[in-house]
Amino acid sequence: MKKLINAPEAVVADALAGLAAAHPELSVDVERRFVHRAAHAATAGKVALVSGGGSGHEPLHAGFVGPGMLDAACAGEVFTSPVPDQMLAAAQATQAGAGVLFLVKNYTGDVLNFQMAAELLEDEGIESRSVLINDDVAVEDSLYTAGRRGTGATLFAEKIAGALAERGADLPSVAAMAARVNAESRSFGIALGPCTTPAAGRPGFELGEDEIELGIGIHGEPGRRRAPMAPAAELAEAAVDAICADLDFTGETIAMVNGMGASPLLELYVVYNEVDKALKSRGISIARNLVGNYVTSLDMPGFSVTLCRADGDLLELWDAPVRTPALRWGM
Amino acid sequence: MKKLINAPEAVVADALAGLAAAHPELSVDVERRFVHRAAHAATAGKVALVSGGGSGHEPLHAGFVGPGMLDAACAGEVFTSPVPDQMLAAAQATQAGAGVLFLVKNYTGDVLNFQMAAELLEDEGIESRSVLINDDVAVEDSLYTAGRRGTGATLFAEKIAGALAERGADLPSVAAMAARVNAESRSFGIALGPCTTPAAGRPGFELGEDEIELGIGIHGEPGRRRAPMAPAAELAEAAVDAICADLDFTGETIAMVNGMGASPLLELYVVYNEVDKALKSRGISIARNLVGNYVTSLDMPGFSVTLCRADGDLLELWDAPVRTPALRWGM
Repeated sequence: MKKLINAPEAVVADALAGLAAAHPELSVDVERRFVHRAAHAATAGKVALVSGGGSGHEPLHAGFVGPGMLDAACAGEVFTSPVPDQMLAAAQATQAGAGVLFLVKNYTGDVLNFQMAAELLEDEGIESRSVLINDDVAVEDSLYTAGRRGTGATLFAEKIAGALAERGADLPSVAAMAARVNAESRSFGIALGPCTTPAAGRPGFELGEDEIELGIGIHGEPGRRRAPMAPAAELAEAAVDAICADLDFTGETIAMVNGMGASPLLELYVVYNEVDKALKSRGISIARNLVGNYVTSLDMPGFSVTLCRADGDLLELWDAPVRTPALRWGM
Repeated sequence: MKKLINAPEAVVADALAGLAAAHPELSVDVERRFVHRAAHAATAGKVALVSGGGSGHEPLHAGFVGPGMLDAACAGEVFTSPVPDQMLAAAQATQAGAGVLFLVKNYTGDVLNFQMAAELLEDEGIESRSVLINDDVAVEDSLYTAGRRGTGATLFAEKIAGALAERGADLPSVAAMAARVNAESRSFGIALGPCTTPAAGRPGFELGEDEIELGIGIHGEPGRRRAPMAPAAELAEAAVDAICADLDFTGETIAMVNGMGASPLLELYVVYNEVDKALKSRGISIARNLVGNYVTSLDMPGFSVTLCRADGDLLELWDAPVRTPALRWGM
């Protein structure tokens, strides 16, 4: 295993220190492992959006902290949930009297820990809501998860609910918007190979020379089935087919072709072209899109597709200004 | 070899079609393989900035086409120079009476082809200048190159000269600025493993289990030497040392920690932290930075560091609004 790290046990703290050095507009608590906007006093009276999860999915979540999106993100160890104390500290640091919305990817550890954080927060008299993200259509239950896993829709919920919070909406409204984005979104991922965590030092699973995993999870957990490698057009069709079999996507969508960490951008654009064609053939149009590495799985080669049904107000919130390390427009 | 492609010979055209589908603000000539701003009439009287090179380095160059940066980019086959006809067509499509600046990475094929394009353009009565980018301190001559190779400074020159062109500066001024950025910039890259082109279907070189290549080129061409794998702090120090031994970096800089395609963002932030420390210990401060995949080598694991000495006016041009697929702020 060759990784750009100093030591497996130091990777999260070192990366957070690098994030702090690179982004003075963020305040990074390396000790307690959370990131929030440095200029937080400016958002008094605003609902605080707090997310987080295991590290190894960067830029998710810390790369989406900033005006128009998250207020804070907690970083767990690689592929491991953050602990309730981190979530509590992040919520305390960013809450401004209007309550806290926790955005939680559906993995058992994350769900339990965010629930405990919400209880601790309640003990301090701070109101919170939690919205569960469970957009991955691949499997119903999985390693680490009861129910569907949360993947690409997390970013969509963070962006769209974040924009609504920025406009001064109250906690129930912001929570309802995040839940709506989740309900309107579906994802499906395909791995061409495994990923290697720094702690394990060897690939998390094995695939044959000509084998892929359809429905892969973002930690490399098993999907629906293994299949022989196929052209990009067939892989895109498989992802779109799985997504559209699960929800009636008609009209306009926001579409993401997400790289899992080791697939070249050149290839992701090839996939996007095929996804666009597969959707067009179904009468579905892409109103907005993202192509790139947004919800990664360390060094996994492969991609995922996330679609969100988006009518007027969702698109308007999507287009609202955002300024984070990984997503930025309009400011 | 597993790649997200339909066929090796189709990858560039398919990726350009995907770029066109994803970015309606760009006009993509898939047949002649160049990309330019769709709303080009708006820039009449502006110096046209045209770059390009072999594919496989995305987002370079097409990902940097848009207001504030390039007017057009030509895409060659993977790791192969575009041909003069492409460059000519891109220049003709974007020139607006104020001449054309070609930004050329120093690889023999690119240099010869851009030179021929300039001659063809001159035959049509259109003035052009060419600025050679040769910032890589690793080796003096190399596979594909007489003299130093052009790498990360290309992006810096495209951004800074692009901002000056946007302000209406004339061709000699814009060319002088690009040359100045190149003169003020140095790069050094380190590979943890090889990359695989779709056409070859197998890695371009081999590295041992615990071996790295110091001074790697962006096509996998040899660097200075092979060495045992080392902690991120030592690798960052090696890159910074090579760069600072070549040019006296004092005061403020723009720094990029660039991923070569398959190194997780988590690790790139670990490297950034170490680069920041290595520079601070030399009295060098980072005024602006980029951390991510900007000048890639397909699926190569590893990173490069690019530094540019940047005083007031360079920083001001760096900060100017830009709106491209891969670099965007202020608009």
